[in-house]
Amino acid sequence: MLGRVNHIAIAVPDLAAATAAYRDSLGAAVSQPQPLPEHGVTVVFVELPNTKIELLQPLGQDSPIEAFLEKNPSGGMHHICYEVDDIILARDRLLAAGSRVLGGGEPKTGAHGKPVLFLHPKDFFGTLIELEQA
Amino acid sequence: MLGRVNHIAIAVPDLAAATAAYRDSLGAAVSQPQPLPEHGVTVVFVELPNTKIELLQPLGQDSPIEAFLEKNPSGGMHHICYEVDDIILARDRLLAAGSRVLGGGEPKTGAHGKPVLFLHPKDFFGTLIELEQA
Repeated sequence: MLGRVNHIAIAVPDLAAATAAYRDSLGAAVSQPQPLPEHGVTVVFVELPNTKIELLQPLGQDSPIEAFLEKNPSGGMHHICYEVDDIILARDRLLAAGSRVLGGGEPKTGAHGKPVLFLHPKDFFGTLIELEQA
Repeated sequence: MLGRVNHIAIAVPDLAAATAAYRDSLGAAVSQPQPLPEHGVTVVFVELPNTKIELLQPLGQDSPIEAFLEKNPSGGMHHICYEVDDIILARDRLLAAGSRVLGGGEPKTGAHGKPVLFLHPKDFFGTLIELEQA
């Protein structure tokens, strides 16, 4: 069921400084910052040969990464996004296995314009998992 | 400089249960557990089309993931490993940029038999980064 790692999301308190670290110290290709107000984050994409890192900074009120940054003020790895072929089939398999799907279980449109779901980190050993229909 | 994401390491308190969750709930291909006593962990590889997840459980005394699990008893994302072509060039670039390389700065032989270095998470916004010579 699990396909490619679409991205690894890293929450950071200072997007400009984090972008500079990935670009200058690590020599990675980084995008311009992209504000996504409907998702409550500004994102910079770090493009790698086989996947990408998304550096996320809170944007506006009620950002979904605000609480994470309160607990982890320096930042940290926030979630892993895996691609699936069929998000409804994936959801139903997870529910049948007893896993909890966040937000009522109906896919929402994610930051890439595709249907996404998030899984409860307690069911996956502290890792927040996003599933995105490929 | 940064190449492929070689793996994402997730520390877990119960490797058998985590393996079952990735295999049964998420439908991923998982390896047999592989004890790596010289690295203080037992690892299960979750094979994905473009990279892999390494589920890590402490093995023996002084496991490098013991302190992490004390702080995060349910487990969590522990580090990201990126491939680099030349680990000495990579290290020197990082040191010149003011980044801290852990363990004295000399590469050690990692779990895949290749030279590796770890970078200080405070220089990368709470993310522990491993570099592995490809």
